[in-house]
Amino acid sequence: MLSSLSLCVLDENLSAHIDHIHYIVHIHLITLAVETYVEGIRSGDRVVLGRAITLVESARPAHQALAQEVIARLLADAPADPSPTLRVGITGAPGVGKSTFIEALGMHLTSQGERVAVLAIDPSSTLSRGSILGDKTRMEQLSVNELAFIRPSPSGDSLGGVARKTRETILLVEAAGYNTVLIETVGVGQSEIAVHSMTDVFLLLLLPGAGDELQGIKRGIVEMADLLAVNKADGDRTRLANQARAHYLNATHLLPSKPSGWSPQVLACSATEGTGIPEIWEALQACQSQTLSNGFFSENRRQQAGYWLRESLEASLRQLFYGNPAVRAQLEAVEPEVLAGRMSPFAAAEAIISSFGH
Amino acid sequence: MLSSLSLCVLDENLSAHIDHIHYIVHIHLITLAVETYVEGIRSGDRVVLGRAITLVESARPAHQALAQEVIARLLADAPADPSPTLRVGITGAPGVGKSTFIEALGMHLTSQGERVAVLAIDPSSTLSRGSILGDKTRMEQLSVNELAFIRPSPSGDSLGGVARKTRETILLVEAAGYNTVLIETVGVGQSEIAVHSMTDVFLLLLLPGAGDELQGIKRGIVEMADLLAVNKADGDRTRLANQARAHYLNATHLLPSKPSGWSPQVLACSATEGTGIPEIWEALQACQSQTLSNGFFSENRRQQAGYWLRESLEASLRQLFYGNPAVRAQLEAVEPEVLAGRMSPFAAAEAIISSFGH
Repeated sequence: MLSSLSLCVLDENLSAHIDHIHYIVHIHLITLAVETYVEGIRSGDRVVLGRAITLVESARPAHQALAQEVIARLLADAPADPSPTLRVGITGAPGVGKSTFIEALGMHLTSQGERVAVLAIDPSSTLSRGSILGDKTRMEQLSVNELAFIRPSPSGDSLGGVARKTRETILLVEAAGYNTVLIETVGVGQSEIAVHSMTDVFLLLLLPGAGDELQGIKRGIVEMADLLAVNKADGDRTRLANQARAHYLNATHLLPSKPSGWSPQVLACSATEGTGIPEIWEALQACQSQTLSNGFFSENRRQQAGYWLRESLEASLRQLFYGNPAVRAQLEAVEPEVLAGRMSPFAAAEAIISSFGH
Repeated sequence: MLSSLSLCVLDENLSAHIDHIHYIVHIHLITLAVETYVEGIRSGDRVVLGRAITLVESARPAHQALAQEVIARLLADAPADPSPTLRVGITGAPGVGKSTFIEALGMHLTSQGERVAVLAIDPSSTLSRGSILGDKTRMEQLSVNELAFIRPSPSGDSLGGVARKTRETILLVEAAGYNTVLIETVGVGQSEIAVHSMTDVFLLLLLPGAGDELQGIKRGIVEMADLLAVNKADGDRTRLANQARAHYLNATHLLPSKPSGWSPQVLACSATEGTGIPEIWEALQACQSQTLSNGFFSENRRQQAGYWLRESLEASLRQLFYGNPAVRAQLEAVEPEVLAGRMSPFAAAEAIISSFGH
């Protein structure tokens, strides 16, 4: 049986190890004092940072309260006009080589002395285990790099829960001095929208020689992208990649112009050979620089914060409401009547709201 | 100045006439007793039905309460196992001829003795005035037909509000004996999803000789359709219409199969010449008949009722929450801190929730 002590040491990697535990024991997460978290994070202590993220990811109210206190302290102590961090969303269909690309981009950044954090949003991670970033060995070089911090997708029962944890984690890694945050997402579904709502620039990776329909990329995702990069532009595929690049370049000209004033760029790269990676980093920086000077960058962050405030508010409100015993009892009483068509959903809703007693 | 009496007579058509009122007076809607509404609707009295719908559409709490009482009575008194009504959602891009089609289909139905109600969902109706169904003269024959009841889109500040009113109106017109309810929607945006969530079958009208991209129809809308009808298949356009029909027939084979077990059909028609209309009605009935026998029809209605229960609950809850003075004060206090990045959205949400006091 694992002791509290060994679990405490392992907690950062728990999701990778939990497969080997055949029965679940009560995990007593050993927490630190607020001051210890705050000072550890500020000084860039990776172990303390990992433990703070574990707090953020915990479902326990006491851990949540502690995590909020730590974040509040970090935000309150932040310098009034810090040099802006860059939050980059990265997506692409499965098989496009996201992990290899992130490793190549991350190594390029750290080679210039930049500190980079890699996070992920994968709402399927609870079920599928073998999720993106779940296996750090897919980023062999970056995972042992002193300037890089990699954290797999938090698990959670809903995209909303996973997204909340990731957004709080962004605040923590930035406070620890990781000025570039790369956030990977799976190439399909709603998680792109969540990542887009918490990043400054959005990068879409594409395969050479395949139309976007074949790559399972929805049109809305293409429209969100500030930068499209055709990966695997190497060897025999170079010509195909250049064709794909020309195709997407045409396609982006047809898109409506972006509120940021930035015109999406289309580049080609080979993550395995490292070609095109510096150009992509330059383009990402150019996008940040242009939006910083036209004011969109700060305005976008303000809007994102407002969006997350409303999302958090309504999530907490729903929790409060559906957790109320009188509400639950009334819901159970009227729901069958509504489903059978004997009671209008609107009258039933009023009855349930009354039982909430406000 | 209009007297209460004349407004009372006009109330059903108020939205069509309000353009001519140059200043708004307080409108004293003269309400009836619950029993009068219930009996009037049951006996098919069109004036009482119109006045009950006006209650449903009113924003006043007293009118809402009365409307709920009327609906509750109608549902409670309904026969235990009534012959099922058919709710048909109809969409298509502007210019496809939706009104002409609905008139042709409606006239076909009434010629067989069927009673048909025509409703609409158009969230833009508040702003644009000249909305779908707003001008009944576009359905010249049907609007004077004894067996037909036409009601323009309710106005409302949000799609949610408009959808709620329409769904309650469906219950009223069905109680008045209109066994077929056609619900028109504009051909773009979210209103299709609202209509789909309150109908049994979904019909998409298409123009001959234009790919679906050109018609502004999103792929998701095509996937929702149980029946695709290429309209304006007449004169010179007949050949084009048949080509378009073949094109869409191929396209529907590529779609994932529907949970209803129904295979989407593709037909051609000319609403102006009346050709193809009986076949479309037969296909709609075949869809109802198949889903009634495999159980999907009732299961779908149950799920829709459950969906509307949750939607109503959360709409009422948000109203209660954001209407609370302590919540509003706390929100105003913390929001600027969140937008400036000095406070985490999650901590702010907790502070606001606490001020709600539950």
